[in-house]
Amino acid sequence: MTVLPLCPTPIMQHETVQLAHGAGGRLSQALMQRVFMPHIHNTYLDLLDDQAKLELPPGMVAFTTDSYVVSPIFFPGGTIGELAVNGTVNDLAVGGARPLYLSAGFIIEEGFSLADLETIVISMAEAARKAGVMIVTGDTKVVGKGQCDKLFINTSGIGVIREGVNLSCRNLAAGDSIILSGTVGDHGMAIMTSREGLSFQSRITSDCAALSGMIAAMLDVAPAIHAMRDPTRGGVAATLNELAVSSGVGIAINETTIPVKAEVRGACELLGIDPLHVANEGKLVVAVAAADAAQVLEVMRSFAEGRDAVIIGSVVNLHPGMVVMRTAFGSQRIIDLPLGEQLPRIC
Amino acid sequence: MTVLPLCPTPIMQHETVQLAHGAGGRLSQALMQRVFMPHIHNTYLDLLDDQAKLELPPGMVAFTTDSYVVSPIFFPGGTIGELAVNGTVNDLAVGGARPLYLSAGFIIEEGFSLADLETIVISMAEAARKAGVMIVTGDTKVVGKGQCDKLFINTSGIGVIREGVNLSCRNLAAGDSIILSGTVGDHGMAIMTSREGLSFQSRITSDCAALSGMIAAMLDVAPAIHAMRDPTRGGVAATLNELAVSSGVGIAINETTIPVKAEVRGACELLGIDPLHVANEGKLVVAVAAADAAQVLEVMRSFAEGRDAVIIGSVVNLHPGMVVMRTAFGSQRIIDLPLGEQLPRIC
Repeated sequence: MTVLPLCPTPIMQHETVQLAHGAGGRLSQALMQRVFMPHIHNTYLDLLDDQAKLELPPGMVAFTTDSYVVSPIFFPGGTIGELAVNGTVNDLAVGGARPLYLSAGFIIEEGFSLADLETIVISMAEAARKAGVMIVTGDTKVVGKGQCDKLFINTSGIGVIREGVNLSCRNLAAGDSIILSGTVGDHGMAIMTSREGLSFQSRITSDCAALSGMIAAMLDVAPAIHAMRDPTRGGVAATLNELAVSSGVGIAINETTIPVKAEVRGACELLGIDPLHVANEGKLVVAVAAADAAQVLEVMRSFAEGRDAVIIGSVVNLHPGMVVMRTAFGSQRIIDLPLGEQLPRIC
Repeated sequence: MTVLPLCPTPIMQHETVQLAHGAGGRLSQALMQRVFMPHIHNTYLDLLDDQAKLELPPGMVAFTTDSYVVSPIFFPGGTIGELAVNGTVNDLAVGGARPLYLSAGFIIEEGFSLADLETIVISMAEAARKAGVMIVTGDTKVVGKGQCDKLFINTSGIGVIREGVNLSCRNLAAGDSIILSGTVGDHGMAIMTSREGLSFQSRITSDCAALSGMIAAMLDVAPAIHAMRDPTRGGVAATLNELAVSSGVGIAINETTIPVKAEVRGACELLGIDPLHVANEGKLVVAVAAADAAQVLEVMRSFAEGRDAVIIGSVVNLHPGMVVMRTAFGSQRIIDLPLGEQLPRIC
């Protein structure tokens, strides 16, 4: 879409999103000019063509997509916009790619506050800057009042995979160390405690963060890392199960090693939720040959995102496709994939 | 996401989408296995990693995104799924790219029929096959009843731009011919007449189609085409205005040359809508040097999508940034960019 010269003031005076803002006419352009372009601009997006034209460095290309429907859209530690940038950045990074370019597709409910929209756009721009990616193409649709809940954002991303790196959930081998980058359950419990009707008076904040910088440093020292996953929906339990099944191996973890913040643990206990099933948005599960584990751990701990990184277990020859945890009491418990999730719209 | 072995029957017995289908656990996997994987599968998607890893041919990469919120989701001539595939394919093709890979992000309302979802997935798979693209990565979110209207789909796409081709809405030059690929307003009026409460007893069907095959053939004979756009939201009027403004030129068109189906014209007259403002989903506006116009037109007419292609006007040295139409009565009328759109959720 080409931005025409600004129209006279009347159409700029709205305080909320109108259906016509998504109709491809003058009001669409006004929305771009007033809310998006001041914060997100680069040589690609500024052209406002139907597609960005990009020169990619050589290598395999990673391509990913996620829609974000988190509720509330502002939560302790982040916004739906930051989540949308960081989540897609992380999905590229865990594939061994350097995240380069993102798209952003907005679906907005008629009547949504333009000021809130701008706040979200600013948070996306800031998150993109931090992660070193550019938002190069976008789309905005507006649906009628009651036809969506405030705002949904899709981000897709492309990156280029480092040469010599082969990360896959099918790569785990017996003896591998399983590293977790930090405390579990922060994002999910931040969302849960900020939902209407659930007041814990706690200060649980989301761990929403881009992991691409830390992952790049990890691959610098250990390009042979076997697998990485960000344990989002379904939590660490789902991620470990996927790794175990994909590689046809068993995973044994120790409950006492898994870091959980006291306030997250308290909230989980109160609600009867297993912290291992709770979504994270700035954490990493890594499978790496035991010989490389110490070095990878050291690098992770040098980053804020990996300060609390710890080896939580290892890949074993027993129980292929299953995750077994030695509990704090010394007993063994199967960590199953959750059926669903206790909390919808977590991301 | 790795697909685990199928669970026992109970979780497969749902007839509608459950919140847990979007939670990243067993039910998410069941949804993938029951509804998506039987119809959409390829070496990339089958891996169900967080990202697809692609080997791209050399060249500049085109990257685009669009969210589709059309209502109704089944309409004469298409589904929201076909629209989502064809729309993104077209956004790549009009940039001179060969569309290669798509992502698909679904946002689904709790309670949506699984049978309808499967019908939509099948229509997407078929559209992708026709357009020669692969859906290589995806995401499914489920929101509560009343938190979205049935189903929204985001598709992002990547393609590789043909060498020697430089299509841009900034390329128009005085003397260029403006070609339109066929009748205007079919999609928008198909949607409008299929909306509840608007019954025309007409058989207007959407023009929803992938234009990539025709565009490739056009570029084979005339790689120097200046610009192409698919006139979707805002219609041909918006597209021509964007071209005129971007290139700083005037465009003069002749009303009598613009093909409009009788039933579309009738519906437009009844509703007081200008067919030039109505969205199309399988049409193309082309700006090409006059010397190349006949050849391009001939190629277009050899395709079903361009059977009714016609030169509707030319680029002029007068009125830069403006589109002026000589009406059927011989008078001149400025074709303005619409403020908004008469019809929300057209695509």
